[in-house]
Amino acid sequence: MPKHFEQAPGLHHAPVPETEGYVFNQTMMRIKDPERSLDFYTRVLGMRLVRKLDFPEMEFTLYFLGYLDDKQAQSVPSDDGHRTTYTFGREAMLELTHNWGTENDPEFAYHNGNDQPQGFGHIGIAVPDVYAACERFQKLDVDFVKKPDDGKMKGLAFIKDPDGYWIEILQPNMLEKQRKDS
Amino acid sequence: MPKHFEQAPGLHHAPVPETEGYVFNQTMMRIKDPERSLDFYTRVLGMRLVRKLDFPEMEFTLYFLGYLDDKQAQSVPSDDGHRTTYTFGREAMLELTHNWGTENDPEFAYHNGNDQPQGFGHIGIAVPDVYAACERFQKLDVDFVKKPDDGKMKGLAFIKDPDGYWIEILQPNMLEKQRKDS
Repeated sequence: MPKHFEQAPGLHHAPVPETEGYVFNQTMMRIKDPERSLDFYTRVLGMRLVRKLDFPEMEFTLYFLGYLDDKQAQSVPSDDGHRTTYTFGREAMLELTHNWGTENDPEFAYHNGNDQPQGFGHIGIAVPDVYAACERFQKLDVDFVKKPDDGKMKGLAFIKDPDGYWIEILQPNMLEKQRKDS
Repeated sequence: MPKHFEQAPGLHHAPVPETEGYVFNQTMMRIKDPERSLDFYTRVLGMRLVRKLDFPEMEFTLYFLGYLDDKQAQSVPSDDGHRTTYTFGREAMLELTHNWGTENDPEFAYHNGNDQPQGFGHIGIAVPDVYAACERFQKLDVDFVKKPDDGKMKGLAFIKDPDGYWIEILQPNMLEKQRKDS
């Protein structure tokens, strides 16, 4: 059983039993206006809101969204406490943090990590058909950073969420093809 | 079948068949020094490097890491092209982007999104035992933003990766308990 599938300096190859059961659970981004963001992530991108946690004493709310097929959705606990545990135990949850009131300040904006100073770059959504997905996004007036056939990398798009965060839209087998063609 | 499990303004409740098969595949962060980051994410956090893609003409390399148990690891294709498709098709991959040469510039640093200007906040790793995990991190000289029992939120920690990005360390059932106790 290989520990890794590639070679690179820095890789630790011995098994680390202490990290067994670790799960890449969440990615957190701050959002200005939850109504706009929830509309975008549920209507445009098809995610589901799994858990919402309000912290009135600190005036913020956390929204946890993810992709769940019908079978997975059936296994989500209806009890709020159990659903919290479910939310924090599974892979690939998007956590949106809303500090109350930012939506009412016309000047307020978050930093997307691609303008200076850079750091975080984007989240990425794999889709079955990148051209069909992007045609639909265009009809829905989504902002594009890059359309699928712009630039050198064909079949790969970047759109913007309501805060200007970049979202890569990719078709998994397109990238294999891309590398073979280049 | 509920579309969502919570109520909030902005949620789109009708099914969206066009987004069927969408997967939250990746979160991308730029890193200064791949040797330090790969050591951290594989040795300290126990991830595996699934795919490495070099773009010599543009002088950058992408590293894709994730948690795979032994059964999942057995299903990873050994063929590079097929493994690219696998990498871009599954959930919860961490994509680290290295622009060549930054590791040699002592002044170079990326922005973690929590210092001003704010935006992206953190990634989060669920662990079976948050106290055991954090004891081990302390022994490994990992930088902490918050130890599990610091502040109001008990049983929840934040550590820093080599670039200063925040990583939440959480134990899924601890948050259910937390909310019940408060």
